[in-house]
Formats: sequence, C-alpha cells, structure tokens
Amino acid sequence: MVTIGIDLGGTKIAAGVVDESGKILSHCQRRTGAERPYQQVIEDMAGTALDAVKKAGLTLSDVESIGVGVPGFFDKKTGVVVFCTNLGWHDVPLRAEMRKYIDLPLHGDNDATVAGFGEAIVGVSRDVDTSVFLTLGTGLGSGIVINGKIWSGAHSVGAELGHLMYQHDGILCTCGARGCLERYASATALVRIGHEAAQRHPESVLCGVMEEQWSAKTVIDAAKLGDIAAREAFDEYTTHLANGIITIISFLDPDLIVLGGGVSRAGEYLLEPVRRKVAAGKFFKTLPAGEIVIAALGNEAGIIGAAMLHRG
Amino acid sequence: MVTIGIDLGGTKIAAGVVDESGKILSHCQRRTGAERPYQQVIEDMAGTALDAVKKAGLTLSDVESIGVGVPGFFDKKTGVVVFCTNLGWHDVPLRAEMRKYIDLPLHGDNDATVAGFGEAIVGVSRDVDTSVFLTLGTGLGSGIVINGKIWSGAHSVGAELGHLMYQHDGILCTCGARGCLERYASATALVRIGHEAAQRHPESVLCGVMEEQWSAKTVIDAAKLGDIAAREAFDEYTTHLANGIITIISFLDPDLIVLGGGVSRAGEYLLEPVRRKVAAGKFFKTLPAGEIVIAALGNEAGIIGAAMLHRG
Repeated sequence: MVTIGIDLGGTKIAAGVVDESGKILSHCQRRTGAERPYQQVIEDMAGTALDAVKKAGLTLSDVESIGVGVPGFFDKKTGVVVFCTNLGWHDVPLRAEMRKYIDLPLHGDNDATVAGFGEAIVGVSRDVDTSVFLTLGTGLGSGIVINGKIWSGAHSVGAELGHLMYQHDGILCTCGARGCLERYASATALVRIGHEAAQRHPESVLCGVMEEQWSAKTVIDAAKLGDIAAREAFDEYTTHLANGIITIISFLDPDLIVLGGGVSRAGEYLLEPVRRKVAAGKFFKTLPAGEIVIAALGNEAGIIGAAMLHRG
Repeated sequence: MVTIGIDLGGTKIAAGVVDESGKILSHCQRRTGAERPYQQVIEDMAGTALDAVKKAGLTLSDVESIGVGVPGFFDKKTGVVVFCTNLGWHDVPLRAEMRKYIDLPLHGDNDATVAGFGEAIVGVSRDVDTSVFLTLGTGLGSGIVINGKIWSGAHSVGAELGHLMYQHDGILCTCGARGCLERYASATALVRIGHEAAQRHPESVLCGVMEEQWSAKTVIDAAKLGDIAAREAFDEYTTHLANGIITIISFLDPDLIVLGGGVSRAGEYLLEPVRRKVAAGKFFKTLPAGEIVIAALGNEAGIIGAAMLHRG
C-alpha cells in the first residue's frame, strides 16, 4: 500500500505518492491561489493528489490514507483547520471537504511538525528516538518527535518553539507577545539584525543592498565575504539560535536537534558557531548532549512526513 | 512488597518505607552532616532507611528496592552521583557504597524530578499522563513526566527548566550562563526583586526588614498587606514565572503544570496572577492548555517519588 502526502503552502500545493519505506513515487504541484475560497483550494489539493496517483501509475484503491501538512493549526479530532494565517483560513473543515473528492482517512498536522516527522522517518533523524526540528524561515517553526512519535502536547498546542519566551519585554511578536524566540532566531530576525548592523557600519556592503533584495542569504553571503556588519549580525544571530538550542537541551534533551529552512542552507558556516556556543553555554558542560545537524530532506520532508502521518 | 525512598537534602536525610499504593508506612530522618566524608553520609542514609524499615515492623526481606532523590546529577547506569553542589560531591559511587549496608537494587534521580514523579504517582498529577513540576525554592528545580514515565532526556541532561534561556544577556547564573529562568522565577529571585523594589520605595515596610530576615515569604506577606514595593515585586515575579510557564506550554504542552517549593505556599495568591498572565500571554489564546496547580504532597513527594523510582 502507498499513502498520499500533501504539503499545503501559502504559494503552492505539493502532493506526492509515498511508499511504505518513505520513498516518493511521484510528485505533482499546483499554485495555491490562497485568495480564493477555501473550497477551491481544497479541490485543487485533491486534484494535485489525484494527479500524483495517476503519475505513479496507480489508482485510489492502492492508497491507504492521505496526510496533510498545514501552515497553521489542525484539529486532529474534528479534521478542521482551526486557523492558518497565511491562507486566511479560520475553522475550515478540511477533512469533510476533501472527502467530496477522495474518500480516504485524512490525517493532518502543522507543517513544521510534519517536516520534522519526515526527517525522523527517512531523514537525518531516522536512527534516533527523540528529535527536535527547527525551520529557520520567515517564522521559526518546529516539530518534536519523542520515542518515534509526533509530540504536539496534551492539547496539541505544544511544539511551538518559535514562541518560547526568550527575551522578557523584548521585540513584539506577530502573536502579540514580546520577546518570542522567533523574533531573534528566524530568517526574518537575521534580516532585522543585518539592517541594524548596517546602520552601525556605513562602509558595509549591506548598505548598498536594495530593500527588496534583502534576505537572510544576503547577510550570510556578505558575512562569508568578510563584511564587518554582516559578520556582527551573523554572530548575534547564531548566539540567539544557540541560546534557543540550549533551552531545548535543558528542557527536553533530545538525541538530535535538526535545523531546516532557509538559514540552514548555510550548512557548516551556521553549524560551527552554533555548536561552539551551545557547548560553551549549556548547563551540563562536561556531559554529552544532542548533536546539532542540518536537515537532509529539504522540501521533500513535508510530503514524506505528511504521507507518514498515519504512523505518527 | 514495599520499597524504601530516601530524600537526600543538604541539611537532612529523610527516609520512608512506602507501599505499592504510594502510602508512607514509616518515616525517619537524620542530619546530613554534609561536611563529613561521603562514606559517612551514605552510612547514615542506610541507617535512616534501616530505621524506617524497623519502625514499619518489617525486615529488609520485605523490601524490593531502594530509591534516592539527590540534589544533583545521578548517573543511572553507573550509580554514581556525578555532582551535587550542596554536598560538595563529585563522582561519588552511591550505589556501590550503599550496597555495603543494604544489598538491594538502587535507583536514583534528581530530587526535583523525584518530587514531580511522586506527585504524578499519588499527588496532584496522579490522574494525568504528562506533567511538569517546578520547585520554586533557592533554585528552580523541575521534573518532567511524559506518558506516566520520568523524562530526563536522551542523555539525562534534560528537565533542567531553571536553566532555560529566559533573558538574553541577563543576570549571571550560578551555572555560568546569563539570563537563566532560575534567576527570575526562584524564591531567591523574588528576594532580589523585593530588594530592588524596596530601594525604589523608601516608605516600604520592606526597608525595615533585617537582612537575615529576608525571604520570599517576607515579600509575599508584605504584598498581601498592601505594601507598594512588595506588590510591585510580586507582580514582576509572577510575570517572570508566567513567562516560564508559557514557554513550558509552547514547548511540551503538558496536561498539568505543578508548582511546589517555598513560593508555592502562597497558594491562590500566587495562582491567580500567574494563571491570568499565562492566559493572556500564551501563543494559542483561544485553545485550551494545561492547568496550573499547587503541589499536593509537600515534603513527602521526595520520599514517595524516590520509593517509586523502580517504576519510573
């Protein structure tokens, strides 16, 4: 038997047919068109999934279940997307609506949780029991796997590490609180920190970057070139990220901490300072703790993790 | 069968015989005398345990195992107390040394973890699967129970919530890091915050308190009387504690958050502002999350939890 995994994003819907070993047999995508009524978006999700089934040379009778990663909060009991800020969804009956097109059990979870689970099934954390996955993107998403199972908490409101209270009375977060980790350790945060550093250094190459060209990569590339402002910014950023990881170790102490999302593409250039700062700052300095690694699956993690949700 | 639980503290050793339902059948204690060689302290731990067995009208043949809560780090594999700051212990072979007097399986864990487990077995969190226990004392200790089992992490360095990174570049902690939650949400922190508030308010009753009389209770009692400085201090303290609990909810989302230790004796006076601030500040404001409650067992949690470690 195979399963379908759907990665619902703000700009595109990606769907794939995945076999029991976690291999993607086929892959299709469509534009999300988030401005449309949710019924149309879900019809396109079903259409993308059916395209993938056809492309794999299979029919729906070969498929066991469907899994969806949503950039928001999915209620597993009711099958309703409670909210999904990017898509402007509130209380969208995803499971019921999808059943109009595909009558299969539908599982769902937050997209970062799903990606972390994908890594735990066939990716970098496949050989460990307990892992914490962080996506360093526009926001700071996260997924927790404990003893091989997705951990979303007793009320499914956990695994939101972007909203750890990191700086009392700090920067205002989109969630309404101040000082959430997301405001200091996401790709968006690196851009903010880069802008601040550029203001202190009029000689920085960052000062010549057009506003619409700015991204985390801009800062990282300039830092690699030796730009003083970019180096300061990246140094501040890796300190915040390391502090977040120290909190993860002092709290859960997972086998592995997995970094994904845009900033993680910096690879070893990111890992070296983060590992060094975590080793220097963690509570039990002389005892072993989880390794910090870069995610292995990239965008495929969302499809594979979603397709595997029936095991989660 | 019964088991022995030993609560090893900096000033006293408490031991009890506990039955399978978690009831303490007998209870004895001796002075720790931490200034002595560890061999003598452990001899007294064994002596206290044997006293308790005798007092219960039993013999060692009725006892299945022994459990010890240590104010430090116990290596479960080797049976060695790796360190224990209060007692000045480093690499003390507790299991091997205890076997000279009582030849039974010996389990051990951190004292806050043990107390949290005791609450989960017969205390306030007995009916839930997942709980986080915080002791608001000299430090900020913690214990995590996930699906009914003690969670210390993949390398046993987790469940140290006193050392969550709460304030970037904040107050220096005894662990060497800056801004650990313990420096803002322990009883010691409340005393510090009280001192600072008193300096802003020369009219405060706190200004007349002798240095050696200061405790968390001093500030709480003055706040209850309406003292402005004490009220400001308690308000700041409950904000920090609430922020720590918001992090616990956003991370693990347990069924229950249990408050123990000195500050928790304030009961409803503590719970009311903490619950209100958590409700206002948590990430998913409209969704349910774990309740915040006061521990039920008091000092007995340490003995009961230790005696139950064979189940942990």
